[in-house]
Amino acid sequence: MAFADRLNNVETSAIRELFKLLGKPGIISFAGGFPDSAMFDVEGISAASQRALAEEPGAALQYGATEGYQPLREQLAAFMAAKGASDVAPEQLIVTTGSQQALDLLGKTLINPGDKVIVEGPTFLATIQCFRLYGAELISAPIDGDGVKTDELERLIAEHRPKFVYLIPTFGNPSGAMLSLERRKKVLELAVKYQTLVVEDDPYGDLYFGAAPPPSLLALSAQVPGSRDWLAHCGSLSKVLSPGLRVGWLMAPPELLAKATMCKQFSDAHTSTFAQATAAQYLKVGRMPATLAHVRAVYAERAQAMSDALRAQLGAAVDFVQPQGGLFVWARLTGAGGAVQDGNLLAQRAIAKGVAFVPGAPFFCANPDPATLRLSFATADVAKIREGVAHLGQALAQP
Amino acid sequence: MAFADRLNNVETSAIRELFKLLGKPGIISFAGGFPDSAMFDVEGISAASQRALAEEPGAALQYGATEGYQPLREQLAAFMAAKGASDVAPEQLIVTTGSQQALDLLGKTLINPGDKVIVEGPTFLATIQCFRLYGAELISAPIDGDGVKTDELERLIAEHRPKFVYLIPTFGNPSGAMLSLERRKKVLELAVKYQTLVVEDDPYGDLYFGAAPPPSLLALSAQVPGSRDWLAHCGSLSKVLSPGLRVGWLMAPPELLAKATMCKQFSDAHTSTFAQATAAQYLKVGRMPATLAHVRAVYAERAQAMSDALRAQLGAAVDFVQPQGGLFVWARLTGAGGAVQDGNLLAQRAIAKGVAFVPGAPFFCANPDPATLRLSFATADVAKIREGVAHLGQALAQP
Repeated sequence: MAFADRLNNVETSAIRELFKLLGKPGIISFAGGFPDSAMFDVEGISAASQRALAEEPGAALQYGATEGYQPLREQLAAFMAAKGASDVAPEQLIVTTGSQQALDLLGKTLINPGDKVIVEGPTFLATIQCFRLYGAELISAPIDGDGVKTDELERLIAEHRPKFVYLIPTFGNPSGAMLSLERRKKVLELAVKYQTLVVEDDPYGDLYFGAAPPPSLLALSAQVPGSRDWLAHCGSLSKVLSPGLRVGWLMAPPELLAKATMCKQFSDAHTSTFAQATAAQYLKVGRMPATLAHVRAVYAERAQAMSDALRAQLGAAVDFVQPQGGLFVWARLTGAGGAVQDGNLLAQRAIAKGVAFVPGAPFFCANPDPATLRLSFATADVAKIREGVAHLGQALAQP
Repeated sequence: MAFADRLNNVETSAIRELFKLLGKPGIISFAGGFPDSAMFDVEGISAASQRALAEEPGAALQYGATEGYQPLREQLAAFMAAKGASDVAPEQLIVTTGSQQALDLLGKTLINPGDKVIVEGPTFLATIQCFRLYGAELISAPIDGDGVKTDELERLIAEHRPKFVYLIPTFGNPSGAMLSLERRKKVLELAVKYQTLVVEDDPYGDLYFGAAPPPSLLALSAQVPGSRDWLAHCGSLSKVLSPGLRVGWLMAPPELLAKATMCKQFSDAHTSTFAQATAAQYLKVGRMPATLAHVRAVYAERAQAMSDALRAQLGAAVDFVQPQGGLFVWARLTGAGGAVQDGNLLAQRAIAKGVAFVPGAPFFCANPDPATLRLSFATADVAKIREGVAHLGQALAQP
């Protein structure tokens, strides 16, 4: 059977290798990219689904508008308003089947084979593959602890004139980095200056541990004239409420949103109205703030525990910026004291010691840094985190 | 903003025009392509969702495998086995976000711009648009009351060597036609002879009114050596249980299924596990047979009422094969007695008389027949059907 040429653009062996690492039972896993199931508000979601079916069974079970279930669009607009994007009308967003679908719709709507797209190096693995399936040529923009380096970004935009720039400005996956306020403004100014679409993917912004992060690019765009015309924003309930609902959203300039809606119509018609009505009911009763407070507190404790343990057990052999939110510690092996400096090798050794994490190289679309690691602190409790990092220390010290 | 070239392949004005017709309140609508909300088994679905959250909250709310929730795959394999496809293992199907996504994944996996795909003339509107978005050149294969004319189909396959052939063999949308057993065998033989993939889209096969239809191509493929290697099958719970769950499935040869799964990973990661676990629980308790019996009985009565009323009210001015299942009467204006023979014109007149239906021309990818109409009997009760068809008769008689 002859497949479409676009499949040749995607190299899945790296992903398959990762999944093999994840499959071993009985190990302490820092490998996942998902929230802790134990923190799901099962009672609240259950009650919300019951209300949805009781109050509007037809709407919850029938076909729905491709744009999304209107009461959910209203709740999501209010949710974003509470986070500073107070001027987003429900009609300015569409509901997507997880924010992964928002990425897919952006690819389908915008990318011609050979088009250039700038992403952070490193960035979300499924973004890389999603855009490559549409034939994008990805350009890697370097980051540091304050997120993408905007001087470098401007140089790359000017050189490559990309179709768009994709960023995870707040607690990025895998970097955990938080784009500074100054750089956020600069990114929006670059969007206007070069008339280049910027896509802000923001699944982690609610998961902050101390002070709230700077405003999202979406919220900040009100202060940078013209920037809203060059900004798309992807949101998600997956990391804060439940990935299984598959409720994300895409906010974009009107013409782009209309085209993305048309593409969605032929991708999956609409997102599950059952899941949408459940999410709408959940948000409507005001349960989200308490859920967020709980999730933040638990992840904050785990992030602290992992950071402390890494410093104690691996010392100078590892370098990282302690995350202020999100799910990940992004670390770099320094090779200090002659320790192993290859993330892939350490991952293999670590599995043998009973702990799993994901080496960082596959997260780069170009010029992978083989010394990097992504460690999730989300799904193991504090005791397991300490135990796992101790094993990691042993793996580092001895093959 | 510059959009991708693939968007130029899709002409949405026909669809927009249809939706405008549908939007008028207070009219009797034969225009929808959806089941009757009043028949949804709300109690059964509600109980199933509660069990899903009670018994396995983690699985129902967490990320899941792209291939689908394993207990649902098992239930769906059993569901298909009960319909004659007894040799399909759960691993031979993936769960999709409605069967619309199965179509999208087939397009993404298989279609290069310029590839030819044969579809029935007429066929499902969203299939036409979905495949065109991937750049397919669609070839229209003529049908009659027994489904696609296999002699014509063979000639078209031999001439065009298509990437695949897409058929809705059982109670097709919009045609309502049922492919005969003899032709089903012939289609499978053609697949083997020309080594051409055949896609069987089967959302309506369970909605039969009298005797069960001939076996699906999937079930029949066991009798045609080699044909399973050239057959994909799309199923859906949308028309029999609830469209809002967005639970469909794709069964395909292993290599194709693996590629489609990879594409799905970057399309929406997975279908809502909440919806999947709910559907699995629903099927597990054996509620489906009673639900199907109820739905069949109601639609059978409505199909009969609409057929009788059309004969009584429109007489020789309309020609149609009375449907043996599905949701639609596909009719052709004969022009007898000088009556209007243009479906679009009649639709506009009908709206003025308080009844809506969809003209048939947009369902053809080529050579549209402007005299055709699609009338859904699914959502109006018998009294409304009689009233609506009476209005239709008036619209036919007088502008």
